[in-house]
Amino acid sequence: MLRGLSRAGLGAIGSDENMIAAASKYGFQTVDVDAKGLIDRNGLEGARELLAKNEVSIGSIGLSVEWRDTEEKFREGLRRLAEEAAAAAALGCRVCCTYVLPATNFKAAHFAVIATRRLRTCAQILGAYGISLGLEFVGPHHLRTAWANPFLWTVEETLDWIAAIGEPNVGLLFDAYHWYTNGLSVADIDALSPEQIVHVHINDAPDLPVEEVRDNGRLYPGEGVIDLGGFLGALNRIGYKGSVTQEILSAEAPTQSPEELLVRSQQAYDRVYKAAGLA
Amino acid sequence: MLRGLSRAGLGAIGSDENMIAAASKYGFQTVDVDAKGLIDRNGLEGARELLAKNEVSIGSIGLSVEWRDTEEKFREGLRRLAEEAAAAAALGCRVCCTYVLPATNFKAAHFAVIATRRLRTCAQILGAYGISLGLEFVGPHHLRTAWANPFLWTVEETLDWIAAIGEPNVGLLFDAYHWYTNGLSVADIDALSPEQIVHVHINDAPDLPVEEVRDNGRLYPGEGVIDLGGFLGALNRIGYKGSVTQEILSAEAPTQSPEELLVRSQQAYDRVYKAAGLA
Amino acid sequence: MLRGLSRAGLGAIGSDENMIAAASKYGFQTVDVDAKGLIDRNGLEGARELLAKNEVSIGSIGLSVEWRDTEEKFREGLRRLAEEAAAAAALGCRVCCTYVLPATNFKAAHFAVIATRRLRTCAQILGAYGISLGLEFVGPHHLRTAWANPFLWTVEETLDWIAAIGEPNVGLLFDAYHWYTNGLSVADIDALSPEQIVHVHINDAPDLPVEEVRDNGRLYPGEGVIDLGGFLGALNRIGYKGSVTQEILSAEAPTQSPEELLVRSQQAYDRVYKAAGLA
Amino acid sequence: MLRGLSRAGLGAIGSDENMIAAASKYGFQTVDVDAKGLIDRNGLEGARELLAKNEVSIGSIGLSVEWRDTEEKFREGLRRLAEEAAAAAALGCRVCCTYVLPATNFKAAHFAVIATRRLRTCAQILGAYGISLGLEFVGPHHLRTAWANPFLWTVEETLDWIAAIGEPNVGLLFDAYHWYTNGLSVADIDALSPEQIVHVHINDAPDLPVEEVRDNGRLYPGEGVIDLGGFLGALNRIGYKGSVTQEILSAEAPTQSPEELLVRSQQAYDRVYKAAGLA
Repeated sequence: MLRGLSRAGLGAIGSDENMIAAASKYGFQTVDVDAKGLIDRNGLEGARELLAKNEVSIGSIGLSVEWRDTEEKFREGLRRLAEEAAAAAALGCRVCCTYVLPATNFKAAHFAVIATRRLRTCAQILGAYGISLGLEFVGPHHLRTAWANPFLWTVEETLDWIAAIGEPNVGLLFDAYHWYTNGLSVADIDALSPEQIVHVHINDAPDLPVEEVRDNGRLYPGEGVIDLGGFLGALNRIGYKGSVTQEILSAEAPTQSPEELLVRSQQAYDRVYKAAGLA
Repeated sequence: MLRGLSRAGLGAIGSDENMIAAASKYGFQTVDVDAKGLIDRNGLEGARELLAKNEVSIGSIGLSVEWRDTEEKFREGLRRLAEEAAAAAALGCRVCCTYVLPATNFKAAHFAVIATRRLRTCAQILGAYGISLGLEFVGPHHLRTAWANPFLWTVEETLDWIAAIGEPNVGLLFDAYHWYTNGLSVADIDALSPEQIVHVHINDAPDLPVEEVRDNGRLYPGEGVIDLGGFLGALNRIGYKGSVTQEILSAEAPTQSPEELLVRSQQAYDRVYKAAGLA
Repeated sequence: MLRGLSRAGLGAIGSDENMIAAASKYGFQTVDVDAKGLIDRNGLEGARELLAKNEVSIGSIGLSVEWRDTEEKFREGLRRLAEEAAAAAALGCRVCCTYVLPATNFKAAHFAVIATRRLRTCAQILGAYGISLGLEFVGPHHLRTAWANPFLWTVEETLDWIAAIGEPNVGLLFDAYHWYTNGLSVADIDALSPEQIVHVHINDAPDLPVEEVRDNGRLYPGEGVIDLGGFLGALNRIGYKGSVTQEILSAEAPTQSPEELLVRSQQAYDRVYKAAGLA
Repeated sequence: MLRGLSRAGLGAIGSDENMIAAASKYGFQTVDVDAKGLIDRNGLEGARELLAKNEVSIGSIGLSVEWRDTEEKFREGLRRLAEEAAAAAALGCRVCCTYVLPATNFKAAHFAVIATRRLRTCAQILGAYGISLGLEFVGPHHLRTAWANPFLWTVEETLDWIAAIGEPNVGLLFDAYHWYTNGLSVADIDALSPEQIVHVHINDAPDLPVEEVRDNGRLYPGEGVIDLGGFLGALNRIGYKGSVTQEILSAEAPTQSPEELLVRSQQAYDRVYKAAGLA
């Protein structure tokens, strides 16, 4: 499993180019950045060299298509998806992710069928470039009532949705925070096969009743109460080989410098990989 | 457009064989019966002869697969679908229909994605035998709150669902009662193309506020307030060529004899076809 | 059925803007032009006004994606498809077409499965913008041996291919020349439903043994031996309502001026529409 | 990886019930038998007990649907598929396999698109019961010209076909004989992911020029020239965990008794598992 970084948790890390260099310096192997932007600014060869020089690859790009709103916005965003997928593929990235909010202001069943169709189209386009689509189920309880109608948030629901989408290249983005807030266990990971998981996020949760854990109250791995040793151990055991990417969403910007945050992140990974017997 | 009969509205009409003979006698061209049962009882050649002799064809079979409940029940019912589709196809029937309740006790979004996958599988099996699947949206308002969570009931929602199912052989079962209780107009029919409609039901509604119209309070065509002339005229104008099948769901069994009900049905059709300029 | 023009047969007609004006002047209602180019040069509002002012709409855009060659070229072209589809949709065009050569230098079965997957992806993207994909089967016999291995060229084969692609928005581009060179009859059209046909080409063939008719030896409608009255009559009878677009592929550029060719085209349409009882 | 037996190579082994007992006795963990027949003869509980008592599970059932011939035969066979899938699922079997002949008397491209659609329908039905469909590419050179037109036989072609079929539950049946006769290497296995392989056959080939190796000239594992240590080692390395099932197709029935053949099979497995470092 590859150690990965996203911007969330690194403070004012600066450009994607900076983040790539920082990831390399602090022992990370993948970064979640905008592949097309990297090529636009550096050229294809420049972007490839930058990644190669730093021995870093792209863990996942984000799905920029807005599939949760009007058909007009969906169509507008879809215009760019193939370009973005081509850019990601050109840099060796095989994953594109989006998150699924657990509630919606739309009528839930209607939104479900519209979103099924939209994500199928996105998956087909991504698939043409050899890229898988990861759907991130979202666990924090407060979000389940943050919009009018409940949507999907459990692993089972998300797997059922993936079956409805029906494309071979769709899987889970499995985030430790959502695993924890959904009350899941190591056995729930053991029940999955590795191809069902296309990306992993890692982070930690404060020692609060699980119902009170806020989506933007995340801690660095090992600084909270989630059994990340069990989490990583199970992912490794079932054969997951992709990125394990840090994502620390917080209500306020961190006060430490990017360098301090990178050291903290590196130590966090050392700690939880060791706890998982992977160090 | 073909004049069709279902059991609903004919009282104790007896066997499907009886209904076929009655349909023929009273000027109807199609019947909605169980094709497989007809073959089981009469043999394939016998069933064909019975239909040919009466110059009646089968308008639609019903989807016997239970797609609204547990996975176990779905799988159980699915075992028989190909046999039933093969029987229908052997008798020249090209349509299989099911209705969509406007509410569900399941979590709506989760049920939507599970049902999407299940109906796709049904559509694929039916498609192998040249049969289309018709989804009947259901309009009466009281049913929208008859189960815990709202599901799908408008034409737009149903068409969006058909797009999510994603198979070429899925369309609408368009029922005059649901057209009326959904507050739709002739223009809403004119906006459709004929291949979006695979089957039609006809019936009439009492002169009540539309919110109070009950699903099982249906009248014979022309005995109520629905603009059936406009309904049939629009279907004919857009090029619909299939069955227009009477379906009179009522709270209590009709008191007239089957013969009286058949006469009443025949006259009802004469009246509304004439109102539509089709007589 | 709408009278439509393509460039093929109009000589040096100049820009698409010129062709739109010419179509209008000579009684045509649709043109097959590049929607995105029209918007790029005139802006969206300018393009809309140009079409509205001339009372002309776009019959079909061409599929620019190269689906018949390497995966690299396919992916390269796919990057632009959503933009082109969005442009077409913005101008009210609902059709995008491509032709199917009846032979290939690739191993036929392998090419068939690769092309199935590629065209499904194209159809999905087009479908997101409400656009149908038309596949033009190609009849002239000499092309069946112009490459190493036979591919698909009959209506039946093409419909079977459309079923394999499996998307609801794929249909036939039905060209009079290919209908004729495939030895088809009016009954073959009568057996189709209108939604199976998304675009029509019209032209005529010289009085030669059908095996010797060359793909680029086409005549103006009514100047050859094809029963275009029967062709158009059948299309109208089954309910086809889209464009009937002239496409005169010829070995050498026409010697007449564009104006003369437009007059000739207009008279050709008058003739064959009259022969079909449609004038 | 589980040691599995099929009938091919066991001589007159008798009933499936006999084969289950024999598999158990000689150290095999799976058998390829007809699940529905087992239930028909023993009842569901009886069949489950028989398997449990012998500590044997079903590796794969065969796809009984005839997808290589007329539409009529396809539809006829399809009627039984859901029943067979339900039976397999009830006994815990998750795999159903069919083989792909490398040539066909049909026009190759047309057959490819028809078969794509048919196998998609089969895969959907199997998928409803949690069963994957394995496609066995077939390597022996003489079969490539045994029918009029070349079809598909390489891994790449078969994977491209699986992508065209487009269902998530379709993968390869990987047979050592076809791996060898296609001239494949250990690196070709290493390039696959485990979910691309749903079943494995093992056997050996005589020391002949590879072009002369006959499909029904197979030897027991370790008695020929195939690098089965490399084959099994690579399958294990990529994470394949399913059955490795012996299939010894021979021109003439074996002369040894079933017991002798079972001992020979058991020793064959001991030998090649040891060569792969798996013993």
